[in-house]
Amino acid sequence: MPVDYSVYLVTDRGILGGRDLFKAVEDAIKGGASLLQLREKDISSRAFYDLAVKMKDLANSYDVPLIINDRLDIALAVDADGLHIGQDDIPLRIAREIMGPDKIIGYSVSNPEQALFGEKNGADYLGAGPVYATGSKADAGLPIGPGTLKTIKDSVSIPVVAIGGVGITNISEVKKTGVDGISVISAILGKLDIVEAAKNITGLWKDI
Amino acid sequence: MPVDYSVYLVTDRGILGGRDLFKAVEDAIKGGASLLQLREKDISSRAFYDLAVKMKDLANSYDVPLIINDRLDIALAVDADGLHIGQDDIPLRIAREIMGPDKIIGYSVSNPEQALFGEKNGADYLGAGPVYATGSKADAGLPIGPGTLKTIKDSVSIPVVAIGGVGITNISEVKKTGVDGISVISAILGKLDIVEAAKNITGLWKDI
Ligand code: NI
Repeated sequence: MPVDYSVYLVTDRGILGGRDLFKAVEDAIKGGASLLQLREKDISSRAFYDLAVKMKDLANSYDVPLIINDRLDIALAVDADGLHIGQDDIPLRIAREIMGPDKIIGYSVSNPEQALFGEKNGADYLGAGPVYATGSKADAGLPIGPGTLKTIKDSVSIPVVAIGGVGITNISEVKKTGVDGISVISAILGKLDIVEAAKNITGLWKDI
Repeated sequence: MPVDYSVYLVTDRGILGGRDLFKAVEDAIKGGASLLQLREKDISSRAFYDLAVKMKDLANSYDVPLIINDRLDIALAVDADGLHIGQDDIPLRIAREIMGPDKIIGYSVSNPEQALFGEKNGADYLGAGPVYATGSKADAGLPIGPGTLKTIKDSVSIPVVAIGGVGITNISEVKKTGVDGISVISAILGKLDIVEAAKNITGLWKDI
């Protein structure tokens, strides 16, 4: 089954201000999120595992694949659909060896060299960015802009998802680069009405 | 090859006060440390991986097995000799399934119920403690004392290693419980002359 990268929700409990993570994710999926990444920092492995078990049930009950950020062990332990790794995570080629050929592996890149490296070393898709400035990830680095995003997209043949600061005001500009989807945190989870926010984003992505 | 649990060194870069981790570990092995656990918190997965690659080379060049704390993904990625998990880490049974039957898996316990659970669910050895108060692990919990340590040892048939605050002043008391070894951080890495400290600890353990 081909993966739908169009509206790729990445979780961030911090942005929910105490609202329930599972309710928020379910609302985002009801609104059209097509792919889900569970991203956690600074919690125990057991807490991450417990969240991931519940999240997998939820995502898969909606036929949405669950990708785990960074932690290959959690991805294996819950038999997640995939793993997303960045430049600070374990080497891509080793992740691919351990995960096997059937799991989805995503790789974060911010320039064409990293993109080519990712394509060559077993990534199924690339997360390219941060396209714009973002408050969601403290370690995100400087914005690459839509120009470099397009260069990255044009340099590889695997799907590319735009990451970082993408929302209703710039979604048109992003889609023109030819990328396969957008990765969204605050434009969905940062809104009071998450179903509505996800519908708006999904609608805009499809209509543009 | 049977594992020698007698003097089990657990790393802690914090206690080294800037001294080189690899030099310190090599000195501890030269002094008699028989088993090595790489324990890291709050570093990126890539940084942990890079440390583990180097540590595996070092440990295995001295025929000392390398155990990775908590992170099953790092253990798999560097093909470490084993994994040590605690109550806050991924479930023991799942770790065993993923690691397979041949890798060493250790499990932290602080009472006989956890010890029996560990033995039943695939642990090769138990780390029991903290036996005494310790400054090395902020999350260590209240000391169980040598009495409970002995109860734990008597309740299982797999090897038990005493963890937490074990050093030259109490090593005799610990050995009388019948445990198979001691897990040491500060009593070796906290000393200026690490070779000498490890020789003292190893000598005491063997002579008592
Ligand atoms: Ni990471």
